[in-house]
Amino acid sequence: MPYFDAASAAPLHPVARQALLASLDEGWADPARLYREGRRARLLLDAAREAAAEAVGCRPDELVFTPSGTRALHDGIAGALSGRRRVGRHLVVSAVEHSAVLQSAAALEAAGGTFTEVAVDRTGRVAPGGYAAALRPDTALAALQSANHEVGTAQPVAEVAEECRAAGVPLLVDAAQSLGWGPVEGGWSLLAASAHKWGGPSGVGLLAVRKGVRYAAQGPADERESGRAPGFPDLPAVVAAAASLRAVRQEAAAEAARLRELVELIRARVPRLVPEVEVVGDPVRRLPHLVTFSCLYVDGETLLHALDRAGFSVSSGSSCTSSTLRPSHVLRAMGVLSEGNVRVSLPRGTTREDVTGFLDVLPGVVASVREQLGAPSGPAPSEAAAQAGAELVVDSLGKRCPIPVIELAKVIGEVPVGGLVTVLSDDEAARLDIPAWCAMREQEYVGERPAETGVAYTVRRRV
Amino acid sequence: MPYFDAASAAPLHPVARQALLASLDEGWADPARLYREGRRARLLLDAAREAAAEAVGCRPDELVFTPSGTRALHDGIAGALSGRRRVGRHLVVSAVEHSAVLQSAAALEAAGGTFTEVAVDRTGRVAPGGYAAALRPDTALAALQSANHEVGTAQPVAEVAEECRAAGVPLLVDAAQSLGWGPVEGGWSLLAASAHKWGGPSGVGLLAVRKGVRYAAQGPADERESGRAPGFPDLPAVVAAAASLRAVRQEAAAEAARLRELVELIRARVPRLVPEVEVVGDPVRRLPHLVTFSCLYVDGETLLHALDRAGFSVSSGSSCTSSTLRPSHVLRAMGVLSEGNVRVSLPRGTTREDVTGFLDVLPGVVASVREQLGAPSGPAPSEAAAQAGAELVVDSLGKRCPIPVIELAKVIGEVPVGGLVTVLSDDEAARLDIPAWCAMREQEYVGERPAETGVAYTVRRRV
Repeated sequence: MPYFDAASAAPLHPVARQALLASLDEGWADPARLYREGRRARLLLDAAREAAAEAVGCRPDELVFTPSGTRALHDGIAGALSGRRRVGRHLVVSAVEHSAVLQSAAALEAAGGTFTEVAVDRTGRVAPGGYAAALRPDTALAALQSANHEVGTAQPVAEVAEECRAAGVPLLVDAAQSLGWGPVEGGWSLLAASAHKWGGPSGVGLLAVRKGVRYAAQGPADERESGRAPGFPDLPAVVAAAASLRAVRQEAAAEAARLRELVELIRARVPRLVPEVEVVGDPVRRLPHLVTFSCLYVDGETLLHALDRAGFSVSSGSSCTSSTLRPSHVLRAMGVLSEGNVRVSLPRGTTREDVTGFLDVLPGVVASVREQLGAPSGPAPSEAAAQAGAELVVDSLGKRCPIPVIELAKVIGEVPVGGLVTVLSDDEAARLDIPAWCAMREQEYVGERPAETGVAYTVRRRV
Repeated sequence: MPYFDAASAAPLHPVARQALLASLDEGWADPARLYREGRRARLLLDAAREAAAEAVGCRPDELVFTPSGTRALHDGIAGALSGRRRVGRHLVVSAVEHSAVLQSAAALEAAGGTFTEVAVDRTGRVAPGGYAAALRPDTALAALQSANHEVGTAQPVAEVAEECRAAGVPLLVDAAQSLGWGPVEGGWSLLAASAHKWGGPSGVGLLAVRKGVRYAAQGPADERESGRAPGFPDLPAVVAAAASLRAVRQEAAAEAARLRELVELIRARVPRLVPEVEVVGDPVRRLPHLVTFSCLYVDGETLLHALDRAGFSVSSGSSCTSSTLRPSHVLRAMGVLSEGNVRVSLPRGTTREDVTGFLDVLPGVVASVREQLGAPSGPAPSEAAAQAGAELVVDSLGKRCPIPVIELAKVIGEVPVGGLVTVLSDDEAARLDIPAWCAMREQEYVGERPAETGVAYTVRRRV
């Protein structure tokens, strides 16, 4: 049964499993103790730190193990901000960072600091100069992912690091999605990562802080991990994380090339197999194993369930799948369609048959979800009921994504070319998906205005 | 090779190992996802939470899994303090809490709050009414361990909980050392524990927060674990923790009775086998598996190394073993001897032969360490050189524990009964160990005063 959500959590790599089992017997004692069990644990911990530091490209004493990638980001950002508190309390992040970074920014703001989000283009990439423009004299820290977790776009880390270096601001890189594929290039100051993204166990994050970077760990003092990660270390998991990082790196070049081909296959075939689809993310500068596309007139949750029944595990940034009813902040920042969003991230070892099997079932699954929702069947609007000068109002209040877009698509043919359709919606996704639909369908998005209830989105028919 | 440091970390229980292995295959995916791997992970997580909650004696929705016991304490204390910030910023703790609690108190103070340490008696137990007297109108939280991690003394949790309830103050119980032996009695409000103390894996702590307790999680927002423990859960470890907690509880009554007998054997025999020993901690109201004693004229680090060479792994609260050069805060709060301190904590399954083997080697090991250090060989001071009215000054500046006490013991016989000996020392442990030596040797401890360098400790010879 193909599992295509490696970007959430990769299945345990065989080397990780083997190292975990071996160190259950050798690595349960306290590495801070002087007796033989403690000394054995200390040897394992030291060796794991050396192996992980080599893969990261830092000194062992610059690297600590945290309980997760999220904690590495939370603690790393808080420690770096505090270390430069005299400079100021301003943080620069991209608009498409992992929620752990954006929530750290929100926590900073709640505590009286400020942050700036650097915008991305339609591929999800920050513009050259974007960080340079956002840096201020009171900027304590900048943070940028090495590659985006939802659409796979690689970020220009080395260039941004250079912009930060010129301004004297440390750059923290969230390397969670890319570290298994290779070290992060460029002059970063801090780096965070997460073992279960590369096939290591859960429960292990990495936090590297370059010598010379001002850093003040927050929270109660604790002697573990150079005072940067409190609590008894989960040594078997740490050992498994380091061993598997080394193992996946050895296979990385060959596996990346293989998976990149499979991803190319999906990128090329999906738009031909499924009508009204937008493939998102940078087509070239990207993670090798991840591809994301969105399907018009499709409810993300229904689509995931249907694919799950067909045997494929994928994830989605559609608002329709989330309890918050908000579309992914990444898709929103990119300004691309969020409805019917599917992220396919291939674990190592995925076969061509797994992918072609997915491509075989996808068109039927999308068509059946569209049929259930009463989506328009043809790609072009009917002109049957067109009336010159007409303006049409569609009341979609109380209806959730993708219904507002489906209703818009159904009635656009009822106004003449040049006529207006206004959709009333109180669904947060409409703000993203109605303009995205217009771009995909070559209609003109006129704009939005507050309505008595919800928001009125107006579209001018062009074709 | 007997390992006697279960209070640091217990070897993995067979049930934990089994559950961990089983859930490596079933529990690696994200339990928040909708596909089958996610649903399986969610089932495992829910079942683990139910089992752990049952063992704790709370509702499943009151319990979250944290990455360690330390994090459970750090986060639980911070969350409870913040939840009652309007009441005030005062925290009450006992003087013998785990460092994670005391460091949380220090962090509160650094942030502008205050805390009160409730004293303990010579057994390490807080007095009835001690918490009631410390509670104030601005007390946001009180914290008390269920049993002490260094000397095993059980605390009167139910009585203190009642004192707190009467004052309307929530009580957080650190149950790290006792949860494997049984639930914590009494009306606690929050509870923290650590799986690797009961034979579960590293990487799992428990934090229970009773419904109705005001609580505001600190740090960046995160949806995991009811917003109380950020980061991807280490599900295999969580499953193993819950399964092993259930397993050790089933064996607890029988195993406690068995280990209590072995501990009684050590408590009774050590003072007979080794001269100049103080067994510390409450002799009755105590953990079943833990016993602590201190040996005069012995350097803790040398003793641990010698015991390690003889095949026994124990720990020590002596300053001589620690990089901080400070004796254990627990022994200090109790006012008992810290030099030559040995904590024996028996893991489940320890045999009578393991313990008698330890008792066989201990006298010789202690004697050889004392001989290396030139400790006085007889228990009573020689009166050979006694001079009426003499006052003797011993300069032990720059010498570390146990040398100052050894030098004191060597010269006490040189003054007549009623005469004074003053020891000059800059070793932090002397403050604790010289009065403790006086109590053990029935000499009179006159007091301390600042000297030009270090501190002058004065003793009057009584016997």
